[in-house]
Amino acid sequence: MIGEEPSKIRANEADERAFIVRALTALDVSQSDARDVADVLVAADLRGVESHGIARLDTFYCRRIEAGVVAARPQYTVLRESPTQIALDAGNGLGHPAGIHAMRAAIAKAEQTGIGLATLRNSNHFGIGAYYAMMALDRGMIGLAMTNSTHLAVPTFGRQKTQGTNPIAVAIPAADGPPYVLDMATTAVTFGRLEVSDRKSKELKPGWAVDADGRETRDPRIAMTTGALLPLGGYGTENGGHKGYGLGALVEILCGVLSGGPFGTDLGLDERGLHGGTVGNFFGAFRVDAIRDLPLFGRDLDRQLGLLRAGRTSPGVERVLVAGDPEREHTERYRSEGVPIDPKVWETIDALADRLGIAKLDRFVVEPV
Amino acid sequence: MIGEEPSKIRANEADERAFIVRALTALDVSQSDARDVADVLVAADLRGVESHGIARLDTFYCRRIEAGVVAARPQYTVLRESPTQIALDAGNGLGHPAGIHAMRAAIAKAEQTGIGLATLRNSNHFGIGAYYAMMALDRGMIGLAMTNSTHLAVPTFGRQKTQGTNPIAVAIPAADGPPYVLDMATTAVTFGRLEVSDRKSKELKPGWAVDADGRETRDPRIAMTTGALLPLGGYGTENGGHKGYGLGALVEILCGVLSGGPFGTDLGLDERGLHGGTVGNFFGAFRVDAIRDLPLFGRDLDRQLGLLRAGRTSPGVERVLVAGDPEREHTERYRSEGVPIDPKVWETIDALADRLGIAKLDRFVVEPV
Repeated sequence: MIGEEPSKIRANEADERAFIVRALTALDVSQSDARDVADVLVAADLRGVESHGIARLDTFYCRRIEAGVVAARPQYTVLRESPTQIALDAGNGLGHPAGIHAMRAAIAKAEQTGIGLATLRNSNHFGIGAYYAMMALDRGMIGLAMTNSTHLAVPTFGRQKTQGTNPIAVAIPAADGPPYVLDMATTAVTFGRLEVSDRKSKELKPGWAVDADGRETRDPRIAMTTGALLPLGGYGTENGGHKGYGLGALVEILCGVLSGGPFGTDLGLDERGLHGGTVGNFFGAFRVDAIRDLPLFGRDLDRQLGLLRAGRTSPGVERVLVAGDPEREHTERYRSEGVPIDPKVWETIDALADRLGIAKLDRFVVEPV
Repeated sequence: MIGEEPSKIRANEADERAFIVRALTALDVSQSDARDVADVLVAADLRGVESHGIARLDTFYCRRIEAGVVAARPQYTVLRESPTQIALDAGNGLGHPAGIHAMRAAIAKAEQTGIGLATLRNSNHFGIGAYYAMMALDRGMIGLAMTNSTHLAVPTFGRQKTQGTNPIAVAIPAADGPPYVLDMATTAVTFGRLEVSDRKSKELKPGWAVDADGRETRDPRIAMTTGALLPLGGYGTENGGHKGYGLGALVEILCGVLSGGPFGTDLGLDERGLHGGTVGNFFGAFRVDAIRDLPLFGRDLDRQLGLLRAGRTSPGVERVLVAGDPEREHTERYRSEGVPIDPKVWETIDALADRLGIAKLDRFVVEPV
């Protein structure tokens, strides 16, 4: 979730990365796996997707390892393999190293055959999908990453939660300009948006959520407790809610059913609960030059994205953006100014440091300009 | 577009198919190509997607061939080929036989390697994407089809039309139950919905369209003339309009830029105009058994879709549907009851028969029950 005023308390990117490695290695995670997790979480914070960064280190990763529901030293298993596809079991390990492992396998296959697909089952929350899709970029490939997730959303006209925010991420390499990086939940908004509305005592917008009976609700409390998220397109079919539902169900099928992992009611777990091994992923890598010369493609993509960015805007709007632009601009800014971390998140990571007996994350406060 | 009360005047499926073949072969299209077009158009009418069926035979296909802007006897060219991918040029022929040709090529590659991708450039309007995606089903494959299209939609916060309704179709084979068939425009609604609102003098819903300045409009006339469609998710970013825009742009990149065909301002053509060769497609076929045993996967998909269909509903709603259900139910009904054809469409096809000097399409009027 992007767009809130960033915290004035910042961390240095390298310090944040080192802290995450300290925390995880203290829990017996290997250096290499801990570095993978740090890479993905820091990338999320740099991209302005605070909800998926260090904010989740304690509850989503460390506590689950400490409780023994996520394996610190997992064994990955190859379930099936061909020159173009691989089906993997993550051994209930952390989702980030497993995701990186699977996406690398897809890329290696695409190097040889032009295309690689990988599924991963028995894995855990992998952070931002864009990270994995973007791994394909410097190989001249189009990258794809999807994950199923805790069931928070209803199907169109339904009242039972049957799918998660189930994001789809696609990254496409350009030439001189920045790449195209789409990373979108298939729900209208994420759970975090409900939390923000609740915190600010603001009504929800129409099309965001339903109550326990499957009726649209504007009350964030109701939506967060007994209610559920609506798919992209909102309630019913009038604004295309069935399309968002259809995309979310597609992700559920590819990541849950195809991977051979849990799906349907087997995945209906509490977001903050202490569980493991329930998440599945679907990764893809496609060599652009199997279809078209990469430089020609890159030049044309630059032109296409440039046309969009130069387009005339609606009244009161500064510019038209392209998928990936806000996140890239955040990254450039936070690389030089430091990574903003919410004061409440600082509390959880300080407490985590105390609990694990490791050095705290250094903070520096940005001076008011 | 599904859901309006179907016309009481019906055609027999086989008669409709034969009429389309008569019309196209009278214009020097080969028997085989004409049969492909008939197959796709009749499938659309059977599925209840009347906007993409025989309604378009005259304006989109016959008139363009008569005007010489679409080739009756195209030459297909292979631009690049590998064991997993093929880039094709459709020689400015009709979109349906070219699409079937390209999807067959993708499927043949997937038979060998597990995955096949095909791009098509210099093609024309191909009808419903679901048709091509569904070609993969009886091979135990997941099928994918996308097309770019006449630019009718603005990007988020923009006022210039930069992308079409750019649909994405995915078909996934189940075991005993029906398959999962998602076929969705990446705009909130299609142009046809504006036309229906206009005809019924009804206001548009919020999130459907903008005026010439990129402001949201409720006026169907303004939307249809100087305005534009909004992406799935509606105006701005609040309900995820940037996600629909991102998906539509993705389709534009894969079908226009990657295929090597026209994109951006080169594709900004009048929907009803006499032009040819501007459309590009992206097709994919993925063998399920490269990842998981097909019967196991099919059984689990049946279970997942069954859970969705059996789900409790919002108040006043009869049942939860799964992508492809309404179209399949239409098909079953219209196969036995005849294909409903709008009286205005009948006029155009009767006039077409006269113009081409071919036998008219027989009609039978369904008796009131």
